[in-house]
Amino acid sequence: MDLSTLIGVIAGIGALVMGYLLEGGALGALFQFSAAIIVFGGTAGAVLTSFSLSDLKHLPHWLKVAFTSQTFGTAEAYEALIGFAEKARREGLLSLEQELQTVNDRFTRQGLQLVIDGTDPEITEEILESNIAVLEKRHKVGISVFEAAGGFGPTMGIIGTVMGLVKVLGNLSDPSALSESIASAFIATLYGVSSANLLWLPIATKLKMKDKAEVAAMEMVRDGILSIQAGDNPSILREKLKTHVGSLLPSEDNDEEGAAAAGRPAVSESR
Amino acid sequence: MDLSTLIGVIAGIGALVMGYLLEGGALGALFQFSAAIIVFGGTAGAVLTSFSLSDLKHLPHWLKVAFTSQTFGTAEAYEALIGFAEKARREGLLSLEQELQTVNDRFTRQGLQLVIDGTDPEITEEILESNIAVLEKRHKVGISVFEAAGGFGPTMGIIGTVMGLVKVLGNLSDPSALSESIASAFIATLYGVSSANLLWLPIATKLKMKDKAEVAAMEMVRDGILSIQAGDNPSILREKLKTHVGSLLPSEDNDEEGAAAAGRPAVSESR
Amino acid sequence: MDLSTLIGVIAGIGALVMGYLLEGGALGALFQFSAAIIVFGGTAGAVLTSFSLSDLKHLPHWLKVAFTSQTFGTAEAYEALIGFAEKARREGLLSLEQELQTVNDRFTRQGLQLVIDGTDPEITEEILESNIAVLEKRHKVGISVFEAAGGFGPTMGIIGTVMGLVKVLGNLSDPSALSESIASAFIATLYGVSSANLLWLPIATKLKMKDKAEVAAMEMVRDGILSIQAGDNPSILREKLKTHVGSLLPSEDNDEEGAAAAGRPAVSESR
Amino acid sequence: MDLSTLIGVIAGIGALVMGYLLEGGALGALFQFSAAIIVFGGTAGAVLTSFSLSDLKHLPHWLKVAFTSQTFGTAEAYEALIGFAEKARREGLLSLEQELQTVNDRFTRQGLQLVIDGTDPEITEEILESNIAVLEKRHKVGISVFEAAGGFGPTMGIIGTVMGLVKVLGNLSDPSALSESIASAFIATLYGVSSANLLWLPIATKLKMKDKAEVAAMEMVRDGILSIQAGDNPSILREKLKTHVGSLLPSEDNDEEGAAAAGRPAVSESR
Amino acid sequence: MDLSTLIGVIAGIGALVMGYLLEGGALGALFQFSAAIIVFGGTAGAVLTSFSLSDLKHLPHWLKVAFTSQTFGTAEAYEALIGFAEKARREGLLSLEQELQTVNDRFTRQGLQLVIDGTDPEITEEILESNIAVLEKRHKVGISVFEAAGGFGPTMGIIGTVMGLVKVLGNLSDPSALSESIASAFIATLYGVSSANLLWLPIATKLKMKDKAEVAAMEMVRDGILSIQAGDNPSILREKLKTHVGSLLPSEDNDEEGAAAAGRPAVSESR
Repeated sequence: MDLSTLIGVIAGIGALVMGYLLEGGALGALFQFSAAIIVFGGTAGAVLTSFSLSDLKHLPHWLKVAFTSQTFGTAEAYEALIGFAEKARREGLLSLEQELQTVNDRFTRQGLQLVIDGTDPEITEEILESNIAVLEKRHKVGISVFEAAGGFGPTMGIIGTVMGLVKVLGNLSDPSALSESIASAFIATLYGVSSANLLWLPIATKLKMKDKAEVAAMEMVRDGILSIQAGDNPSILREKLKTHVGSLLPSEDNDEEGAAAAGRPAVSESR
Repeated sequence: MDLSTLIGVIAGIGALVMGYLLEGGALGALFQFSAAIIVFGGTAGAVLTSFSLSDLKHLPHWLKVAFTSQTFGTAEAYEALIGFAEKARREGLLSLEQELQTVNDRFTRQGLQLVIDGTDPEITEEILESNIAVLEKRHKVGISVFEAAGGFGPTMGIIGTVMGLVKVLGNLSDPSALSESIASAFIATLYGVSSANLLWLPIATKLKMKDKAEVAAMEMVRDGILSIQAGDNPSILREKLKTHVGSLLPSEDNDEEGAAAAGRPAVSESR
Repeated sequence: MDLSTLIGVIAGIGALVMGYLLEGGALGALFQFSAAIIVFGGTAGAVLTSFSLSDLKHLPHWLKVAFTSQTFGTAEAYEALIGFAEKARREGLLSLEQELQTVNDRFTRQGLQLVIDGTDPEITEEILESNIAVLEKRHKVGISVFEAAGGFGPTMGIIGTVMGLVKVLGNLSDPSALSESIASAFIATLYGVSSANLLWLPIATKLKMKDKAEVAAMEMVRDGILSIQAGDNPSILREKLKTHVGSLLPSEDNDEEGAAAAGRPAVSESR
Repeated sequence: MDLSTLIGVIAGIGALVMGYLLEGGALGALFQFSAAIIVFGGTAGAVLTSFSLSDLKHLPHWLKVAFTSQTFGTAEAYEALIGFAEKARREGLLSLEQELQTVNDRFTRQGLQLVIDGTDPEITEEILESNIAVLEKRHKVGISVFEAAGGFGPTMGIIGTVMGLVKVLGNLSDPSALSESIASAFIATLYGVSSANLLWLPIATKLKMKDKAEVAAMEMVRDGILSIQAGDNPSILREKLKTHVGSLLPSEDNDEEGAAAAGRPAVSESR
Repeated sequence: MDLSTLIGVIAGIGALVMGYLLEGGALGALFQFSAAIIVFGGTAGAVLTSFSLSDLKHLPHWLKVAFTSQTFGTAEAYEALIGFAEKARREGLLSLEQELQTVNDRFTRQGLQLVIDGTDPEITEEILESNIAVLEKRHKVGISVFEAAGGFGPTMGIIGTVMGLVKVLGNLSDPSALSESIASAFIATLYGVSSANLLWLPIATKLKMKDKAEVAAMEMVRDGILSIQAGDNPSILREKLKTHVGSLLPSEDNDEEGAAAAGRPAVSESR
């Protein structure tokens, strides 16, 4: 579970409902089937027109990414790569075959396999690069889909409200129900603006942040695999990977601390 | 037929109409000739002023692109190019003349013809590059036209509604018809916002996505043609094209699968 | 006359007026002197503050560009340059002096003059480059002016309407005229939104498209002049210019045609 | 005085007031102290929070720049630099010391001083470059400040109007004053939208245009100074500076003239 | 204390409250618990969904940065670095160990430590670069968080107001309280627009400006450290650092002064 996504969605919707109840509103007035059809059906239609089915079939996957936390991070990859480099150094590249089973990350495993297969280094690099590029491209589509939904949502809400007003003003046979009808026309605006700002746009941002983190981790793995294939000394590999891990080691919070913080570089165990 | 475009447009409009009927609205109230003239005539006028006739004459073509699915994809091109490379290797470049008839894709055919004609490789590359650039430029105009329409639509809707209100408030001779007149003034907003968000903007996005896919396919064909002309070994060609097909072969969905997924590179049949 | 600009403006305004009349509105109610002063005076003031007088003195020229069609295009330049190259090849660079009279395009004439004067090639290139850069810079200012007007227009409309409402609500001495006054307050919004979306923004887009076309033509002329000065073979010049004309020769519409379309490259007459 | 800024501001505000008076509005109703405090105080607060005091202390300077015309332009600099080059050529670099008194432009004077001091050419270039960069950075802050004010203005107007409505609706003890109170609530919107669109945003654009012009002039001075230090022949200097002055010499308006315009290059006196 | 942030926030909120009181509004009407829950709870929820907890835990730190003034600036760093260079020149690199205690800035201290440790210059540069990059990345996240809050705030305000209207219109049992209820519905809009424009967006801008300043200072320190490690002459170091300090030495204000201002370069003490 990605706690911040889950808590964020629940807290956001919860705050709106709680505020409404505190004001003394009736919960039932917030549910309206016709407004939901206009807003969510209209948004779905606009998104379907915008993207291809083969792109949209990844929708469940994107949602899963937004709502679960990804376990394989840069820090673990850092340790694992150093380990592989040391083993390869001692026992040869082929010895990595035994490690292959223990690797959960598909990209690392693929890279190791290429190394074990004795693939040409240039082609190894091209394939790893291309995999990162393909991933980024697909992520970008996912982000675009949610941003598009975030753009269409509020306009569908406006359409629903205008339609509601057209209906209300069109036949005032029962004037006593007028204000209630106007109220219900506003529900569409509520649905459109809320879905966009509590779901679609925040999820798009979350996917963007996770894309950046995943690409950064993959770039470190790529550098590590290529360094192992080149037979670099593990301590040189360590130096090379430092640039990538910079963002998660102790130095991270140092600037909140006082002058007592160590003056040593962030990743200095190899000194 | 591009199913997602068709379903998207129908589902989007259908959702609005269904929601409206469920609320008990009268369908007839949604049709209003004067509002349609203001919104669609105004949008057309603004688009005409913005672009030249020689650009706009491609409009039917762009719509066709958005609503039909393009059959020649990267995967087929990949297979075809490998086949040409093998034939050229065995029987010489001129033997490709026989294949020319079987090629449906204009760009691939043009590239092969250049190779058969013995055109200078540099000029071949420049002509293919220039063709891709010309296509991208023309696509960009198409995307701009629909984005412009998507921008003008809602403002024309506002103009129509304001005009309607001006008329209504200008002569209140028949107060009983007041609310009905106001309702009908809102129809223009409805037309403007709906056309922009269910048609123009989604079509612009769809064209953008298809442009990216077509350019990617053309870039692969370009690389393949140049490699064939250079007399590259088919297996080297395969390696070269891998970077392009990365996005449609099995690896595509691997990251949804568990750790059981193969660790081998995405396109490994040439190993 | 640039037909699309003219038809666009007339069709756009015509559609609004026609829609209004069909609804039964009184034409006179759309004309209001005070609203026009607020919207157009305010927009003019904001544009004047934004730009310098020496930039704004080109305003009539920009309007002329938007409303007339430019006759010297890439296709003619292509033919003319090939002709000059052949003449220079047969009779020497100085023979181009006779052609000078027949050239209507200032930029081509200037380039030829530099060649005839025996200017250093590097300086020729720099002067031609600098002329293109200066033109682009000036065009960009023109586009900015109309985009600024398109941004200020609607806000001036809002200001006019708010002022109208302030006046109306401030003295309700004659309640019977209330609704009429409110109606007239909306005229400012109408003027602001319409002028921006039927004139300023579409003209800005048209200028942008024409800028791109003119710069593309000038870049071809530059390449042609430099090639003539270098004494290139006319057939080589033809190859060089192909990249530029790509966008206007037959291939342009090929992709709408079926598979029967010729597989030969777009500009193949030199083969 | 920068006439276009002054006329623009006066004409813009004048148009609004005149339109309002023509409609029969009472001038007094436009002045409201509380709305002014909310809009201008709120905008000032938001701008203060956004920027640092050391940035904001340049505010009077930026306003001065927007409202006065800068006298040292590219054309004068062009002449002056040619003059210095000729003198240096005839009488040596040290002779420029006499000219120093006559130069009003700080940047030119600083550059000449460096040349006279015999500073290392590379360091001269770095110092001049760094001065241009520092100027651009400071200008960018100025532009950001006015753009920020232009963004905050209208939202403060909305806040003021909403507050006014809250007050009005909160106590309807005197219903007869209702409409007047609503009118006065709108004054805040008026202030916010007008100040943003007649002052802040146009001034930001004017500063942006002047920044471009100043940087262009400085770049020409830099090239000139470096050329003088290198001991270039004045006629070569002339060629070098031509690229910069391109934008203000006769060619500027040629394209409005007919085919009779000279075919010679824009700056050809050195031919 | 960063005075401009503090004064800005107080002045902004103060101006709104004062304007409201001057108009005769009752202060109590501005406080409404349910609106606060909807706006601030909804904004918090949307921000939580958008970012990860590990990013958001820096929130207090970002606020501290916005509200306090950072003491270690470019000017001090300039002096300190020159001092270190002179000492290193006289007494050797190891003598800098004594200075280490006196340095308050973590980044400078880390750089000096690397130099003293005799780290490979290339690795020193990479580590310092990577530290700047990591800092910029983290700052960018902070800016994004406040910009996101600034975007969500007003939409949550709209949601709150629409909910309030739905409640009001849904049950008009007590018509006498109608206008008061509508007034209270607007409080949510007030909260949303004010928080975004007086807090979130200005703080985002302030963080952006401080990020630029800090990165500029770090880049100067990096250049200084590398120059010291390379054993550059202190006077050469001075020249190198001039480019960085350009923005804070006397020349800064010269252009406001008359022609009497010194013609000498901004930082000329080393001449």
